[in-house]
Amino acid sequence: MHSNEYFMKLALQQAQQAYEHDEVPVGAVIVMQNQVIAKGYNQTELLHDVTAHAEIIALTAAFQFLNAKYLPDATLFVTIEPCLMCAGALFWSKIGHIVFGATDPKHGYSSQCKHRPFHPKTTLMSGVLADDSAQLMKHFFKSKRKNTTNL
Amino acid sequence: MHSNEYFMKLALQQAQQAYEHDEVPVGAVIVMQNQVIAKGYNQTELLHDVTAHAEIIALTAAFQFLNAKYLPDATLFVTIEPCLMCAGALFWSKIGHIVFGATDPKHGYSSQCKHRPFHPKTTLMSGVLADDSAQLMKHFFKSKRKNTTNL
Repeated sequence: MHSNEYFMKLALQQAQQAYEHDEVPVGAVIVMQNQVIAKGYNQTELLHDVTAHAEIIALTAAFQFLNAKYLPDATLFVTIEPCLMCAGALFWSKIGHIVFGATDPKHGYSSQCKHRPFHPKTTLMSGVLADDSAQLMKHFFKSKRKNTTNL
Repeated sequence: MHSNEYFMKLALQQAQQAYEHDEVPVGAVIVMQNQVIAKGYNQTELLHDVTAHAEIIALTAAFQFLNAKYLPDATLFVTIEPCLMCAGALFWSKIGHIVFGATDPKHGYSSQCKHRPFHPKTTLMSGVLADDSAQLMKHFFKSKRKNTTNL
């Protein structure tokens, strides 16, 4: 069995892909029976579509792969705390487990929801390789600000 | 200028399409300058994808149509109060106006969010043709229960 850190590293690789495409660097993988069945990275700029978050792309890929709309036996690894939209999508998916890296005090679901928004059976873990995720985000926004200043 | 009721009737036609395809009957249209630029109805069963709510489908269609990821000059008409996922998507879209029909005490965003989750500039109206939306939902779930009982 691979560790949570192993799969979070794969999610971080997805986030790195986003970074290299000048997208806010968030990445996700979905795992079942110790295997990655779906992955995604943020593509809101490329697709001109604010719904194209890493989690949504990975979820839709997982639904297609399994030909099923519920994922009770799957685990989502995502580098950053899901936003309200992604938390809502995860609720509907009835996903078995959610593992995320860094918290997102500004847009994370936990600062906005009255109660835990996931399906009652969904388990939740946070803080896995959180520093790596947070660093990637920090570098991204720092380079963005630098570019803006140079304009 | 067409009225809110006029566009909500178009959203209800979308919801009716969902009903006829045995999907939870929710429909949406997105309007700019008095014209429909995008529409959608719930297709979660057909696509095996719980993210395929009417609002998400309509938003993605609008982004493609405009080749833009923000919709400050657009209005979304949706038959039912958006869920957490759709409210989050609407936040990110910076949509100008949201008009919805019936409230959804079980899954609507308002029962789950600490604060109004939309962009500060987004205006909100509810209750437009609410009875029609609610009736359509009621009929749908009644017929579902009947079918289940007959199994």
